[in-house]
Amino acid sequence: MTIKAYGARAGNLPLEPLAITRRAPGEHDVQIDIAYCGVCHSDLHQVRSEWAGTLYPCVPGHEIVGRVSAVGAHVSSHKVGDLVGVGCIVDSCQHCAECDEGLENYCDHMVGTYNFPTPDAPGHTLGGYSQQIVVHERYVLHVRHPKEQLAAVAPLLCAGITTYSPLRHWKVGPGHKVGVVGIGGLGHMGIKLANAMGAHVVAFTTSESKREAAKALGAHEVVVSRNPEEMAVHAQSLDFILNTVAAPHDLDAFLTLLKRDGTMTLVGAPATPHPSPEVFNLIMKRRSLAGSMIGGIPETQEMLDFCAEHGIVADIEMIRADQVNEAYERMLKGDVKYRFVIDCASLGT
Amino acid sequence: MTIKAYGARAGNLPLEPLAITRRAPGEHDVQIDIAYCGVCHSDLHQVRSEWAGTLYPCVPGHEIVGRVSAVGAHVSSHKVGDLVGVGCIVDSCQHCAECDEGLENYCDHMVGTYNFPTPDAPGHTLGGYSQQIVVHERYVLHVRHPKEQLAAVAPLLCAGITTYSPLRHWKVGPGHKVGVVGIGGLGHMGIKLANAMGAHVVAFTTSESKREAAKALGAHEVVVSRNPEEMAVHAQSLDFILNTVAAPHDLDAFLTLLKRDGTMTLVGAPATPHPSPEVFNLIMKRRSLAGSMIGGIPETQEMLDFCAEHGIVADIEMIRADQVNEAYERMLKGDVKYRFVIDCASLGT
Ligand SMILES: [Zn+2]
Ligand SMILES: [Zn+2]
Ligand SMILES: [Zn+2]
Ligand SMILES: [Zn+2]
Repeated sequence: MTIKAYGARAGNLPLEPLAITRRAPGEHDVQIDIAYCGVCHSDLHQVRSEWAGTLYPCVPGHEIVGRVSAVGAHVSSHKVGDLVGVGCIVDSCQHCAECDEGLENYCDHMVGTYNFPTPDAPGHTLGGYSQQIVVHERYVLHVRHPKEQLAAVAPLLCAGITTYSPLRHWKVGPGHKVGVVGIGGLGHMGIKLANAMGAHVVAFTTSESKREAAKALGAHEVVVSRNPEEMAVHAQSLDFILNTVAAPHDLDAFLTLLKRDGTMTLVGAPATPHPSPEVFNLIMKRRSLAGSMIGGIPETQEMLDFCAEHGIVADIEMIRADQVNEAYERMLKGDVKYRFVIDCASLGT
Repeated sequence: MTIKAYGARAGNLPLEPLAITRRAPGEHDVQIDIAYCGVCHSDLHQVRSEWAGTLYPCVPGHEIVGRVSAVGAHVSSHKVGDLVGVGCIVDSCQHCAECDEGLENYCDHMVGTYNFPTPDAPGHTLGGYSQQIVVHERYVLHVRHPKEQLAAVAPLLCAGITTYSPLRHWKVGPGHKVGVVGIGGLGHMGIKLANAMGAHVVAFTTSESKREAAKALGAHEVVVSRNPEEMAVHAQSLDFILNTVAAPHDLDAFLTLLKRDGTMTLVGAPATPHPSPEVFNLIMKRRSLAGSMIGGIPETQEMLDFCAEHGIVADIEMIRADQVNEAYERMLKGDVKYRFVIDCASLGT
């Protein structure tokens, strides 16, 4: 089936309307009419060929929500009419240790929602800036939020799970003092989620102007990280730090805020390296510097249910598909609170 | 009491015989006649003022074994004649969260065995290159090895606990594949200990010539880390890596050998930074890069008892005190298998 999409034919061209095809649903497939798709920083990097190996045409988008419009004969977990979501993963090997543990995100054969090899035309996956997608039922999530919130649920599929998974893995909860570095698409979710998990949340930003906004998101304290006196107040006091900043920066300034046995987890990979962290800061308090990548499918469902239960959605600005190039430029300037979401109805009928 | 010691009067002078004083044992103190003291790389760095803040005269040495020669009135845990050890710690605040958990090594007020402030003359602690030391009973360890092994027990007090503690903290045991990077004073203990804990041990060395020696120490496999083909065999296969190499090196070459959720723990701090590790290698398998510093007192006792039970001691080369300058030069060339130990009887009577 041919559908409308928005994507780029080359790294140096803007995104434009494209016609793409989707496979007919197989026995285990779910066909989804896409209502909304969030705009993630990864989309921009990949579509502009700033990361290696972009395949064209490139249709980005891995924060997908919509309604089931058809299911394969053997699909039991979803039915036509259901509100569902698809995140960063549309397939994996389904039989390795990672897949068996529901950690499909760490499967060596994970298939990303766009720019990964697939037998479907054109030979690589095409993402959610489109009218429809067909996905194996294993990778389709139930959305239990009220349907009025559907657009704001979309960013949970990447920004939400990317921050939820490390907060859960490192067991953040009541009694913990947790830092969230960066107040953007990822960080604003990290603040909301850590707060809902019962932690005392300290938000770190380089920008004085974000202080009130961070509090409104659920930060109990806000620190302007350029201010050494403000930073010093929190020395050796944090149990965990979720660092969402991909731009190269001084990791030591944050590592030294961790308590003994504390961990700082990075969820963004910088294009050029961070300054090398001081090993002494790891050694002297048995601290860890870790990384985390999105989350597995069961945990993504858990996150969506947690958010539905706690009334958590992303803060979004809705755009039409033909505004996405402009949205990228604004995103680069940090001019978005906090996630653009494409209204896929704007692709036409 | 005035005793003989070996130390330096300045950073640019060799070590030489010195006369130093020790306090009379207080109510909770144990006075130890030192039999042997191991020679640690830290000794060299500190005494030569290669690290900040060396106080002179400097008497290094924190791998101390000997026999109790007097005890204070309230000492209950040690008695005259006992074989005992003292490691890197001779005091701490005794009431913080770290001290309460027996993690005196992470106490903010830990007093190191040499070069730390003390009310005793000359105002800073003086280490084990000496005939005698007086230490609060809390920081004195029982040695349960046969007395014939006493000299080879000395290095357990720093090299032993520095490697034992992270192996235990990260729960190394049967069924685990564990890497030990570097086969020197620390690494040779790491291999022996990880083997005794039941792990499958892979030793990493830059030197083809150490292959057989590493196997003799207990490594099940030995990898020459300069050989990319040998390294590739172990990609994504290690549960834990104990990295004992302080010299700046490529951490990514080892991080990529870790399985999902694996940790590489550094126990040496380089004088100049390692090349900055690639964040992507942490993110894509939720790996951690951590640090660990010696160990607490209860864990040091546990380590000594574990070693006594498993017949583990260090491989040593015994020297006289007046050979220590020469030993430092050999240590810098890696010309020692694997630890120099000073026979403190050579200080005279
Ligand atoms: Zn994303
Ligand atoms: Zn798999
Ligand atoms: Zn040492
Ligand atoms: Zn303390």
